[in-house]
Amino acid sequence: MNQLKFPEVKAMIFDVQGTATDFRRTLAEEAARLSGGRAGDMDWGSFVDTWRGMYRPALDEVLAGTRPWTSVDLIYREALDLLLEKKKLSFFSEDERVELNFAWQKIRPWPDAVAGLERLKKRYKIATLSNADVSAVVNIAKHGGLPFDAIFAAEMVGTFKPDPRTYRMAVQYLGLQAHEVMMVACHKYDIVAAKALGLRTAFVARPLEFGQNGKVDVRFEDQFDVNARDFLHLAEQLDC
Amino acid sequence: MNQLKFPEVKAMIFDVQGTATDFRRTLAEEAARLSGGRAGDMDWGSFVDTWRGMYRPALDEVLAGTRPWTSVDLIYREALDLLLEKKKLSFFSEDERVELNFAWQKIRPWPDAVAGLERLKKRYKIATLSNADVSAVVNIAKHGGLPFDAIFAAEMVGTFKPDPRTYRMAVQYLGLQAHEVMMVACHKYDIVAAKALGLRTAFVARPLEFGQNGKVDVRFEDQFDVNARDFLHLAEQLDC
Repeated sequence: MNQLKFPEVKAMIFDVQGTATDFRRTLAEEAARLSGGRAGDMDWGSFVDTWRGMYRPALDEVLAGTRPWTSVDLIYREALDLLLEKKKLSFFSEDERVELNFAWQKIRPWPDAVAGLERLKKRYKIATLSNADVSAVVNIAKHGGLPFDAIFAAEMVGTFKPDPRTYRMAVQYLGLQAHEVMMVACHKYDIVAAKALGLRTAFVARPLEFGQNGKVDVRFEDQFDVNARDFLHLAEQLDC
Repeated sequence: MNQLKFPEVKAMIFDVQGTATDFRRTLAEEAARLSGGRAGDMDWGSFVDTWRGMYRPALDEVLAGTRPWTSVDLIYREALDLLLEKKKLSFFSEDERVELNFAWQKIRPWPDAVAGLERLKKRYKIATLSNADVSAVVNIAKHGGLPFDAIFAAEMVGTFKPDPRTYRMAVQYLGLQAHEVMMVACHKYDIVAAKALGLRTAFVARPLEFGQNGKVDVRFEDQFDVNARDFLHLAEQLDC
């Protein structure tokens, strides 16, 4: 019998947009399809990077109290309208904008995600802890076959990560103590916040989150309990 | 191509304790096991019926505002201590009481439940809407292999069914309108409340909820959109 590395851990909670799924590829493909060639040789990957870049400042306004809680669906939609205007792509119809924005609810898992979760699910309770709307995370998980035992999202406490209430909510809803839960994310701010509350942490590198030349921090750090290349590597290190 | 019976329905939400699971059998077996013969020829099924009977009045006190919101885990535990005292079964140790109370989080699915849900899951989003604590429903679903896409529970809005906020929360978290969601339960008060808010309804008869001679209302009624003998019959009627 192997000694379990983290015998106290009973559950793992996962970031979704970026950590479990490749939003850039899904959105860029959908934008290219819906544009139907009307945008010439548009770099849709870069378009998605800019779009996604407009998301975090909106969440931070909510966290700063300068904006009331807003659905992420609406945050993406407002950003999309601004960006289409700026990029002179106003030919997108209302229906096309609705469909493109909804692609955030169909973002596809990274190739390792489903297989890794299936392995981790055998020993741990696995749940999401996402800043996306609950309804979006339900759609993403169902569409991508991500086998989560439960869907938790910041919306359930009317705020966004890294507000401590989000991590505490997940810990409570799992019926556990903080040290019995491991937060998994590719964004370090997320696991640093979880760590400060006593959760265990796993960093998963996602070098392609913003494409081949995207700037992402993929450096493993000793401050995290686990550092992994992907969900299979995470499962392997936990002997799953 | 068959015409779908309820083409507008996109999701189904399920009551858990009684509708999806046979709490009586699980709890009675666990009580018998833990008593280790110290209770003679005790009728543990009847014991569970009494125990469960003490649960609803506690929820109703919360709904009436005469008691603050309390976890269902605590409600069951308080009732258990009272009942053991009354039945002169005080020999149950603290550890045994904790273990017995936790059996509410391992209540087993009815024989048709997993197979029925697997069929319904192919067309619909399927989620729980339970009065049990979120952590209990997560444990019940995982332990029993109930393949829900999402776990919703009244705890998420700090009240209990049939408070309208519980149904509205599930509808919002599914990203749908009320008429696109079907509430499934064996307790008529639950689907009557959902119907009043515009949800579709399915009644599932559970004649054995309180054992062979238990008093349960299993009468099919035209006021419900579907009346079913079990989850397989429900799936069959929805052409799943």
